[in-house]
Amino acid sequence: MQRYFIDESLPKDRRLTLPADIAHHLIDVLRADVDTEIEVALNDQKVYLAKVVELNPATIELKADLGTDAELPVEVILACGLPKTKEKPELIVQKATEMGADRIVFFAAQRSISRWNPQKQAKKIERLQKIANAAAEQSHRNHQPEVVYGGKLSDVLKNEAADFKIVAWEESAKQGEEANLAQTLRQLRPGQKLLAIFGPEGGLSEAEIEQMQAQGVIPAGLGPRILRTETAPLYLLAAVSYQLELAR
Amino acid sequence: MQRYFIDESLPKDRRLTLPADIAHHLIDVLRADVDTEIEVALNDQKVYLAKVVELNPATIELKADLGTDAELPVEVILACGLPKTKEKPELIVQKATEMGADRIVFFAAQRSISRWNPQKQAKKIERLQKIANAAAEQSHRNHQPEVVYGGKLSDVLKNEAADFKIVAWEESAKQGEEANLAQTLRQLRPGQKLLAIFGPEGGLSEAEIEQMQAQGVIPAGLGPRILRTETAPLYLLAAVSYQLELAR
Repeated sequence: MQRYFIDESLPKDRRLTLPADIAHHLIDVLRADVDTEIEVALNDQKVYLAKVVELNPATIELKADLGTDAELPVEVILACGLPKTKEKPELIVQKATEMGADRIVFFAAQRSISRWNPQKQAKKIERLQKIANAAAEQSHRNHQPEVVYGGKLSDVLKNEAADFKIVAWEESAKQGEEANLAQTLRQLRPGQKLLAIFGPEGGLSEAEIEQMQAQGVIPAGLGPRILRTETAPLYLLAAVSYQLELAR
Repeated sequence: MQRYFIDESLPKDRRLTLPADIAHHLIDVLRADVDTEIEVALNDQKVYLAKVVELNPATIELKADLGTDAELPVEVILACGLPKTKEKPELIVQKATEMGADRIVFFAAQRSISRWNPQKQAKKIERLQKIANAAAEQSHRNHQPEVVYGGKLSDVLKNEAADFKIVAWEESAKQGEEANLAQTLRQLRPGQKLLAIFGPEGGLSEAEIEQMQAQGVIPAGLGPRILRTETAPLYLLAAVSYQLELAR
């Protein structure tokens, strides 16, 4: 069933006039009629069964709370060093949303070749947020992850509060470290926050790793293969889901 | 360091004349000279340090076996229902190679919209195999996964021998099944084979699921979110790596 996110709380009379973009998609594109049923996720992160009751203005009546919960039991914040191409942030945002990320932060790492100047940032984030929103609908999430530009690594470390902080570091695997990720995931309790930091194509610099370690960020290997910058966050999210949702 | 795969065994005199495509890349593109060091994976799946000793014909001397092993401890065969677009098989092959797949089979599922006619198959597979080979070099694998066209689901079930067979099935998750994947991965022993089957965009049909269950294929959910056809195999591979390489 078609799912939409509407940033409203549940109205007392359970009737909602649809925002213009959703009304257009539902009525004009999908050709819904009175009595068509849809699913609507409100800002209480609950998903309601809803029925179209009026076409002009497009109005729905919210019926049962479906009680579905497709969210990870922990909040995962991804912080990704800006990749080189336009396609990679889009791939990260789409796939990380499917896999349950709560918040996706892009930052200018030391070896990031691409820079988002202040004029471009808002536009780029707006586009990425749209991709996240569409992916959240398709993957039947209860809420849409937020995509933000986080500035420098030091800003990310200052602004992104979390119970556990890890950095994906391939040297960590080379040094024989294999257990930090599993140890961290096993300690996570429902409702806690995990910040996971990833380098851009050239990787993170020694200085960045040291800066993070000094602030208690745990270096964690993601297995013995070299993962591309857009692949590592997906590995991390799958591992979180596997450990906390399937292998408990 | 640059890594190449050469489908040869270790020569007695440890000298190898490079195949034309590798010679071109190393000498003309990367402008290597005599004494340039590279890494070479031979068909014994070992990785050797090698040194250029002659430019014309491009010849290397194989030095130490580096003893590196970036392969998953089990062989994972992915069988993917043919996706609709040209880009999705490419994404699956590239990312699944990075994540350690041993063999990638595409098959014509009941709901596959795209069909590869016999004239097109060889060309498509050739292109995908090139993507796998490049990804294997970049991710520092010890060997290149094989990409094949597997025909129908019944052919896949007949031809792909494995110790454990699972099918990613979203209804499985809806029915409250959460543990089949973890139970299967915990039973896997080093050297064993896992066949993991995935549907195309529209999912697998009830008939296909029944056909598989009748042959002992275990339906396994990959968490409560709906994953796209190209995302599910990546989730599976990350879970295999996490369970067998990091969380032992």
